Amino acid sequence: MLFKKLLENNNKWFSGKGSHSDIIISTRVRLARNIEGYPFPWKSALFAKRDILDKVKDAVHKIQYINDAWFIKMDTLGAVDKQFLLERHLISQEHTRSVKGKGLVLSGSEEFSIMINEEDHLRIQVIAAGFDLNRAWLFINKMDDELSKHLPFSFSPELGYLTACPTNVGTALRASCMLHLPALVLTKNIDKVLELLSKLSFTARGLFGEGTQAVGNFFQVSNRATLGLSEKEIIDNLSGVVRQVKEQELTSRQALIKKHRHTFEDSIWRSLGILRNCRLISAKEAFSHLSMLYVGVDLGIIKEVDRSTINNLFIIVQPAHLQKIEDKVLKEEERDYIRASIIREHLKGGRYV
Amino acid sequence: MLFKKLLENNNKWFSGKGSHSDIIISTRVRLARNIEGYPFPWKSALFAKRDILDKVKDAVHKIQYINDAWFIKMDTLGAVDKQFLLERHLISQEHTRSVKGKGLVLSGSEEFSIMINEEDHLRIQVIAAGFDLNRAWLFINKMDDELSKHLPFSFSPELGYLTACPTNVGTALRASCMLHLPALVLTKNIDKVLELLSKLSFTARGLFGEGTQAVGNFFQVSNRATLGLSEKEIIDNLSGVVRQVKEQELTSRQALIKKHRHTFEDSIWRSLGILRNCRLISAKEAFSHLSMLYVGVDLGIIKEVDRSTINNLFIIVQPAHLQKIEDKVLKEEERDYIRASIIREHLKGGRYV
Repeated sequence: MLFKKLLENNNKWFSGKGSHSDIIISTRVRLARNIEGYPFPWKSALFAKRDILDKVKDAVHKIQYINDAWFIKMDTLGAVDKQFLLERHLISQEHTRSVKGKGLVLSGSEEFSIMINEEDHLRIQVIAAGFDLNRAWLFINKMDDELSKHLPFSFSPELGYLTACPTNVGTALRASCMLHLPALVLTKNIDKVLELLSKLSFTARGLFGEGTQAVGNFFQVSNRATLGLSEKEIIDNLSGVVRQVKEQELTSRQALIKKHRHTFEDSIWRSLGILRNCRLISAKEAFSHLSMLYVGVDLGIIKEVDRSTINNLFIIVQPAHLQKIEDKVLKEEERDYIRASIIREHLKGGRYV
Repeated sequence: MLFKKLLENNNKWFSGKGSHSDIIISTRVRLARNIEGYPFPWKSALFAKRDILDKVKDAVHKIQYINDAWFIKMDTLGAVDKQFLLERHLISQEHTRSVKGKGLVLSGSEEFSIMINEEDHLRIQVIAAGFDLNRAWLFINKMDDELSKHLPFSFSPELGYLTACPTNVGTALRASCMLHLPALVLTKNIDKVLELLSKLSFTARGLFGEGTQAVGNFFQVSNRATLGLSEKEIIDNLSGVVRQVKEQELTSRQALIKKHRHTFEDSIWRSLGILRNCRLISAKEAFSHLSMLYVGVDLGIIKEVDRSTINNLFIIVQPAHLQKIEDKVLKEEERDYIRASIIREHLKGGRYV
């Protein structure tokens, strides 16, 4: 029921809507919170974790704004279910493992979620389409206020919010934007940009956060520091740097069009040709062609496909999504076949030609 | 004028018509002849070669069947012109070099031609679409008879026809069929087939005959021996072996469909996708995708493209053809761009999208 509803959800963060969504796919803000009187999850007994689960559930039910939230115990989910939530960026890798006592609160729109007993007692997340840091921050702030009415969060006047890992202490705020940077990758300017980001205390990660590779030319740019800056400063700094990276990407796109127009357009059109005709395709290859197609649509080279179609494909071509769509467990070759069929269907290349 | 007419010619050997033309693209028969009282071309003075040119021209004009023949002096042609004739298999590489005193007789349909002062005084060629050895042989035989009424051919009762190279002495007949063998190549069974052909005294060469590589999975299979066998035996033996190779190719295709259906179909459809969408493509890459497309059409996997379209593309995507079509000299990158445009146009992928 949950998964069926999620598959039909049209307001999701990867809808291709929102401002600057030609390059800035989505915005994410998360807060780490812990509840006084309980040890951090990593040294917590199961009964204590279950206590936390109950407390968070009760607190969420008391918040008026959220009347359509799902409450999920992670140990009730199968492997494909957990993978599915991970593919939608609703939980972390960490949250799919050692699931006893772990939980998830998820609003119907997927915009708001809480991982319970991940690294901290609560990892509150707001995720939105496009470039929307201020609204996301206001929203999460409000949720934090509401929750704090019912949950006594561990807070030190000197250090700020206390967290399981010292790198999060302070605001315990991490904000990030997912950027699509194919031209910076093609022109090999990406390394300079990543180096600069690192010097400015920002982190750039792959599609699935910490420890993952850049697939499909997506980069998640986030703040590194959580201590010594106000929440407003963190949001403003990230906002500034993301705008700059976007400008760099636009400059690289213009350079490609000016100097290598035919080669660039050739790559874009070939990607469309392959996606519309393939009968077998891996997720990795699909991502790479979808990325070229995305930039082709942004630049007006390809007019017959819309951005939301491509964004949706980025999500649904992933293994667990394919299995949820087909409602059965699929082996790798079966997935490659179904993936190709679904891509053709969405790009009007014909599903069962 | 000649080139314009050739470009518009619909009855050419690569029309995709003729029997067995799913696999046997074309049939070629050639006779080497020399005229008594003149040294072979390689040791002949220019005035003697010019004598030969005149004699052959006069003889051709006396043949009633051929009333639409062009007579071309090779030294009047530019580099692109010669390359164009080579790409159409109407002359040899050898005939494009040291052109003084060399000539070409070419019937309007391209079916009949004579290279004058190539390795021998006359290299008479009949080329036809599909598998048509008997008719081609009857036709060239008749032409040989007609020409011999006006030209005293060097002939020894013991050795047969005398030729510049001893390997041609005897019947001086070489017959060949051009086969399209993608499945034998994909299944790597081609090596066994080529080895067997060699043992049986047949030669398999690439698309442009002697010393050329197999491009686009095309193989020219021809007789090696010209001495010790009658013309009929040569034709019959070749006919038998070509039918066998065709059977092998069909068996390999069925094996591919049975064991690797998805992978095989994926390659075929991707080739169509790339050809219909590319903006830059080399001749070599185009040949390889056209070859996959050809087999896809033969197997009924692709229904929207016809064989003659693909065969025509195999010819016109070549460098000199592109330059004749555009009527100007083109650099390599320009050719890659024009080639892609022309392919899209012919495969209804849109020329100027």
